[in-house]
Amino acid sequence: MANKLRIIPLGGLGEIGKNMMMFEYGNNSLVVDAGLMFPENDMLGIDYIIPDFRYLLSKKDTVRGVIITHGHEDHTGAIKHLMAELDAPIYATPLTRGLLEVKLRDAKMHQDVSLNTINAGDRVHIGPFDVEFFHVCHSIPDGVGLGITTPAGLIVHSGDFKFDHTPVDGWPTDYAKLAEFSGRGVLALLSDSTNADSAGWTPSEAVIDPAFDQVFRDAPGRILVATFASLISRIQQVANAAFRHGRKLALVGTSMVENARMAQKLGYLEIPDGLLVPTDEALKMSPKKVAIMTTGTQGEPSSILGRLSEARNRQFDIIANDTIVLSSHPIPGNEEMVHRTINKLLQRGARVIYDPIAPVHVSGHASAEEMKLLIHLTKPQNFVPIHGELRHLTQHAAIARAMGLADENIAVVENGTVLEFQDGKMSVGERIPGGYVYVDGTGVGDIGPGVMREREALAENGFVVVNMRVKNGQMLGTPELISRGFVFVRDSEELFNSAQEHIAKVAAKANGDLRQKVETALSEFFYSETKRRPMIFALVNEA
Amino acid sequence: MANKLRIIPLGGLGEIGKNMMMFEYGNNSLVVDAGLMFPENDMLGIDYIIPDFRYLLSKKDTVRGVIITHGHEDHTGAIKHLMAELDAPIYATPLTRGLLEVKLRDAKMHQDVSLNTINAGDRVHIGPFDVEFFHVCHSIPDGVGLGITTPAGLIVHSGDFKFDHTPVDGWPTDYAKLAEFSGRGVLALLSDSTNADSAGWTPSEAVIDPAFDQVFRDAPGRILVATFASLISRIQQVANAAFRHGRKLALVGTSMVENARMAQKLGYLEIPDGLLVPTDEALKMSPKKVAIMTTGTQGEPSSILGRLSEARNRQFDIIANDTIVLSSHPIPGNEEMVHRTINKLLQRGARVIYDPIAPVHVSGHASAEEMKLLIHLTKPQNFVPIHGELRHLTQHAAIARAMGLADENIAVVENGTVLEFQDGKMSVGERIPGGYVYVDGTGVGDIGPGVMREREALAENGFVVVNMRVKNGQMLGTPELISRGFVFVRDSEELFNSAQEHIAKVAAKANGDLRQKVETALSEFFYSETKRRPMIFALVNEA
Repeated sequence: MANKLRIIPLGGLGEIGKNMMMFEYGNNSLVVDAGLMFPENDMLGIDYIIPDFRYLLSKKDTVRGVIITHGHEDHTGAIKHLMAELDAPIYATPLTRGLLEVKLRDAKMHQDVSLNTINAGDRVHIGPFDVEFFHVCHSIPDGVGLGITTPAGLIVHSGDFKFDHTPVDGWPTDYAKLAEFSGRGVLALLSDSTNADSAGWTPSEAVIDPAFDQVFRDAPGRILVATFASLISRIQQVANAAFRHGRKLALVGTSMVENARMAQKLGYLEIPDGLLVPTDEALKMSPKKVAIMTTGTQGEPSSILGRLSEARNRQFDIIANDTIVLSSHPIPGNEEMVHRTINKLLQRGARVIYDPIAPVHVSGHASAEEMKLLIHLTKPQNFVPIHGELRHLTQHAAIARAMGLADENIAVVENGTVLEFQDGKMSVGERIPGGYVYVDGTGVGDIGPGVMREREALAENGFVVVNMRVKNGQMLGTPELISRGFVFVRDSEELFNSAQEHIAKVAAKANGDLRQKVETALSEFFYSETKRRPMIFALVNEA
Repeated sequence: MANKLRIIPLGGLGEIGKNMMMFEYGNNSLVVDAGLMFPENDMLGIDYIIPDFRYLLSKKDTVRGVIITHGHEDHTGAIKHLMAELDAPIYATPLTRGLLEVKLRDAKMHQDVSLNTINAGDRVHIGPFDVEFFHVCHSIPDGVGLGITTPAGLIVHSGDFKFDHTPVDGWPTDYAKLAEFSGRGVLALLSDSTNADSAGWTPSEAVIDPAFDQVFRDAPGRILVATFASLISRIQQVANAAFRHGRKLALVGTSMVENARMAQKLGYLEIPDGLLVPTDEALKMSPKKVAIMTTGTQGEPSSILGRLSEARNRQFDIIANDTIVLSSHPIPGNEEMVHRTINKLLQRGARVIYDPIAPVHVSGHASAEEMKLLIHLTKPQNFVPIHGELRHLTQHAAIARAMGLADENIAVVENGTVLEFQDGKMSVGERIPGGYVYVDGTGVGDIGPGVMREREALAENGFVVVNMRVKNGQMLGTPELISRGFVFVRDSEELFNSAQEHIAKVAAKANGDLRQKVETALSEFFYSETKRRPMIFALVNEA
């Protein structure tokens, strides 16, 4: 055990290794990222999901530090849950740190957590882990990858990355550092697999500028650009376009305003003096003189764009000749909501521009050719695809295999599977308990498959409660029926009357277990009448 | 009114004009297609959706015929609902007719409906509508478009189409007929907009053959190809590949077996003698000698592929070296389920191949350049994009505009909006009552927004029933609590005990309206404890 390095991706079968990873060497360990996952469409009522990190907590005394590679929710969103249990310092770049501080302050934990600022290029010893941070391009500034020198060897962790030769902030991924790693010998490369099924090379952020120029030239009225609040480079690009085309810019929505303010303060966003105007001022200006940025690209009904699409926004409405740009892609699972929002905006008379209508968004993740470049730059002995569903890892592994890596030097593992490195060799170790933990309201992990199945059944067919009064084994009067989600009650008088008669017949014949007999009989009755199976609960009250 | 043609797309704001259209001229009308829509992810418990055709029924005596352009569910799936109300003959090509017969037989309606077989190239007078049927390529054989000569002029309706120069059945779209229409003068073109945001030209079905050859060459064991049961040309291609590579073929699943049998009988599918083997025989053969075709490409848990992904299939299981091909794209909204199924199949050790990993599927709909070709071939005076969401119609209109059609000659309308043609001019007329009709079990249209909101609320947070016994205004004993979908009851004893105490306190103080007071108090109590808002129902039983 003493000279064995263990790497453990934590979480369920989702994006493997994306939300949280643990590096373990003897009695020392290091955590990389603490993110959340968004619930899928059939995870009913769930707010978000965090990794099951019970294994990590069973070794909490060994944790020497927590590194957050960048400021996206899927890498930061579980930080309050993790830090509530852990006493270890966090390491993050300035922008990432700023975003973490907001989260910790909201959770009233900022006093109790030690936050260390690091910068790309820094080298920090965290227990036996000698960590070199290198800059990577991604769809948020200040992202880093990691070179982690351990007694077992050097591990390179890509973070979320792309190789953008013309990034908006002029700061490309650190090729020199990657090449330097290869000179030293890389025991294993852990690399972002998100876009493994995209051939070629992800377009540079720079391709968006001409697309925006076109939009700004053609727009007959106001321009509203929706994007992610964390996409600071996009705010920069829209600000630049507004400046070039003589429009003022207003930012709308708390998260975007706050992120922009922080990014400006920290020097990640440079907005020309006088360009930004308050929203109410922008709304009074000539439509051709103004651009507005906001969030809501995922079709969230409560977002500003969602409210605009249904004329439920308080401050302003869609007006004729508005041009709305969705500078984003739908997060998988959100396609329907996004498309519905676009349709509704078109219904209100807006022009709506989105990829693929025009190249107003590009991915923040490497495509296949960039993945190959990373492998060639680092020349790893072993390769571990991370940050993707199993299908992405499998495809990323196929790419590595095509480049000459042998099968025994490639490990496609799921969250909860331990990878071991000893004497220069990689092997797949034990499985630790793992999976998703659902967060719903203040409940963390109390919603399991049982409650989820109940929600599914209720969503499918609703329920009926039968309230009976009974004396000496005889039902008194007519039972009260309450239903929701089953049928439209006002149009179903006949159905419910027949049900009550049916219950009376069953109750008259029943000797013993009235509750069970009524529930079974009523379930059959409703199925034969409606081909639906609501949940049924009979209550027997002794009068 | 007498010389005015009215065209009315029926349904909600979904795929406009796709599922059902009505052509009205004086006291005569013609229905084109009778399809269903699949429910979106937030339409809880709904089986499927049909268009609201109340307007059509208000004029049912004017209907001279119903044309079904091809055999897909979104054009045929509402046929039993329509024909239950209508006394008019159906016109369809042989394969489409065969598929309709199955539906009408299932609904025990085949005796009462008059079905007429037409073939591409036929010309049929249906009241004042002189209909010429022309062949179009699509992802099911025997699809037709329509040239409808009316007293107001010639309308060309594309059906669902693509321009495949090398279709599997060797039968390209009828260019000559389209050009002939243009010679006669086309008053309006109604054209399929599904892929309006796809640039270029949809690849031919022929590109799939080399991809399948590669799959069949590389597969180390059995090959399972999943596709749509209606995709007869794909069954043909897989049969051909199996024959070329010396494998036998088994078809698994009722719908695929039945469709293949009908297509063979009608001459749309030619399978070499001896190629097809029964499934149980195929399962006994050497894995390298067999290919299996089945359905389940949309991740449906009850499908064979869905069951295989969870080792719940009765007849056989995934074994090592199985190669599974998803020869399909996810229907919008199904992405998560499809990807989850792929991940689970990979988990079971199968190799899984799907687009974009390899070009094993192509769309059945025209892309932008094909749309342009159709416009140039037919040279319409007026243009109406149909078959797509509003965003697709809008983009298709932009394509037409870029080709020189004037704004006043393009109509982007939603379902329920009447288009009128008179004296060679198109105008947008009234709106008729329209929208979706939800089908759930045997209920058609009884589930409205109210019940849907109840299902949403139940899916989100479940419910709690409080059963109280009361005498002389005083609550007796401890109330019974029943909950589902709210919290995991076994772990929530403390919460429910506190809730019961809270109810007792409220009940003791309440004078009048105990029910309402308990419900309000309990809702607040649960929210403060869990930040969840279950539906709450208090029952007051006089003892």
